[in-house]
Amino acid sequence: MKTLKVDLGQRSYPIFIGSDLIDRPELFEACSKASSIYIVTNTTVAPLYAERLSKTLASFGKSVRTIALPDGESFKDWKNLQTIFDELLKHGADRQTVLIALGGGVIGDMTGFAAASFMRGIRFIQVPTTLLSQVDSSVGGKTGINHPLGKNMIGAFHQPIAVIADLSTLKTLPPRELSAGLAEVIKHGAIADATFLNWIEANTSALLACDIEAMSHAVLRSCEIKSAVVSADEREGGVRATLNFGHTFGHAIEAGMGYGEWLHGEAVGCGMVMGAKLSCLLKKITQADADRLTRIIHSMHLPTTAPKFGAERYIELMQVDKKAEGGQIRYVLLEQIGKAYIATAPHEAVVETLLATGAA
Amino acid sequence: MKTLKVDLGQRSYPIFIGSDLIDRPELFEACSKASSIYIVTNTTVAPLYAERLSKTLASFGKSVRTIALPDGESFKDWKNLQTIFDELLKHGADRQTVLIALGGGVIGDMTGFAAASFMRGIRFIQVPTTLLSQVDSSVGGKTGINHPLGKNMIGAFHQPIAVIADLSTLKTLPPRELSAGLAEVIKHGAIADATFLNWIEANTSALLACDIEAMSHAVLRSCEIKSAVVSADEREGGVRATLNFGHTFGHAIEAGMGYGEWLHGEAVGCGMVMGAKLSCLLKKITQADADRLTRIIHSMHLPTTAPKFGAERYIELMQVDKKAEGGQIRYVLLEQIGKAYIATAPHEAVVETLLATGAA
Repeated sequence: MKTLKVDLGQRSYPIFIGSDLIDRPELFEACSKASSIYIVTNTTVAPLYAERLSKTLASFGKSVRTIALPDGESFKDWKNLQTIFDELLKHGADRQTVLIALGGGVIGDMTGFAAASFMRGIRFIQVPTTLLSQVDSSVGGKTGINHPLGKNMIGAFHQPIAVIADLSTLKTLPPRELSAGLAEVIKHGAIADATFLNWIEANTSALLACDIEAMSHAVLRSCEIKSAVVSADEREGGVRATLNFGHTFGHAIEAGMGYGEWLHGEAVGCGMVMGAKLSCLLKKITQADADRLTRIIHSMHLPTTAPKFGAERYIELMQVDKKAEGGQIRYVLLEQIGKAYIATAPHEAVVETLLATGAA
Repeated sequence: MKTLKVDLGQRSYPIFIGSDLIDRPELFEACSKASSIYIVTNTTVAPLYAERLSKTLASFGKSVRTIALPDGESFKDWKNLQTIFDELLKHGADRQTVLIALGGGVIGDMTGFAAASFMRGIRFIQVPTTLLSQVDSSVGGKTGINHPLGKNMIGAFHQPIAVIADLSTLKTLPPRELSAGLAEVIKHGAIADATFLNWIEANTSALLACDIEAMSHAVLRSCEIKSAVVSADEREGGVRATLNFGHTFGHAIEAGMGYGEWLHGEAVGCGMVMGAKLSCLLKKITQADADRLTRIIHSMHLPTTAPKFGAERYIELMQVDKKAEGGQIRYVLLEQIGKAYIATAPHEAVVETLLATGAA
């Protein structure tokens, strides 16, 4: 097992990475001080792991309940958040209750936001069971739900007290979701570590085969990169926004298709192709760099051609995205492979990017 | 005009207290850096002050919109919070948007929670127009909405960037609401400042007549007491909970009657009578002290007899209250007039208190 500490002063927490971690009560130590424990999960993950995790948690001698929500991005809404609150209040949860998010990013975001706002804030632990959530959403404290007019529009910054990334759970992950997770792994290389990107390129097959050794390195290095960025900028005043490489275009794809059609990681994969193209048009990286990144994304079975909504619609969709400040759309761009920056971009370059990537 | 600074490090903010403050753009200075401004108010307050405030804010040259919600505690729910989010997203609000809460505690709590969770946190200014919100809810950063199973169950700690307490707005306040606000003024004396309680006792008529000089002192001293407590304990780990004097019983009254039947301040007034009685039964204050406090509460036209729900129902209602930790109900009690403490209480003493105050 590997352990990484996310350094956020009083809100610091450990990330544990390894196999069969959900069977180890000592990793859930904080539950010994809980008044009650609620596992929040979905109907896909519950039959696979909820009982095993419940058994582990039973050792603390507290009431352990499971709340299983429907599975999917389209259920990341107020209605399902409300279900969590209803269950908590019905069974007498209080400020000393600990929530456990068992599932992917949707469960992590919703459970985190429930923990952030239940009685104005209770503790929670992330047990991410998808690669995407292990390398991305479970680290950093962003929580929230979607609004019909935009993704993650309602939420909070609320740090977990621990993240337990059990690599064994990736074995039950559909290949499409594994690839979606690899999109964020690639992203971490692209924005912050050229050497890591080389390693990813050389280990494509091992990663796609979910080899535990390779996966362990990919998750650890991703968490290291992400947590270093988050520690430097917890509330996204500056550098943290570089983690959104591929996301401005990606969110537009997700919103335009209707949430749930493309997986988040798929949209980010394609969004990175678009971000690389725009960086290239702005003469920051070479066409060869952009092509190479596109090839790596493609090799992980991720889409590299954007859905054709037309330029006007894309720009409209990106304008509502929360990275837009005062109407100006700000893009995460590559200065070189392994280094990102944030800037606005000329309208013509954006349109050319959209045309070049199939979007318009 | 009097100015008080609430000292919370990076989250410090000023409270301005005086007459006709909503006409002074310099107090809303932070809006000069806003991308857009939304006044969130209710249908009772809007016709009285929204246009005047809009005019003041227009001087910043930004888009100013008004969102008017239905008036009352029963509307402090997800549905109306959603209305705020809908309006913000429909009109392109972003992270640089500033919300202005123009109204009483319900508007302040909802607008504050909307600001806390819109795009994971934007800035807001409190313009409390009721005495209750001027002396209590606008200070301290508690925000939230009610859940059918409990008051303020969903929320966040989110500090405003300024509080502008315009005493002129109290002139349009119904007498019943003025009295409800005076309950919290009395509370501040009871828990923290015996001299202030003497002053309140001597100025009952001036306060009930809404005399500006007297009111100015009452609001300032209340804000001073509350903000000192909040500065010492922002997230209610300890001393802040003493501000809940009268609230454990009071919330039970509100929940039992159905929110909106009794005003919050009325329930707190009666709750303080009950808290004083319990403190007396526990031999902390004398019967004369408890009687005197009851007399002061009564002189402000507040109820001093509790609705008769029966002991069992009261205890059940208090158990769901968020001050209950792990099933234990903790009461704010008086050690002496001007000094509060927090403790559990023997069942018999609680039942005797309920019997003595008409509750059972």
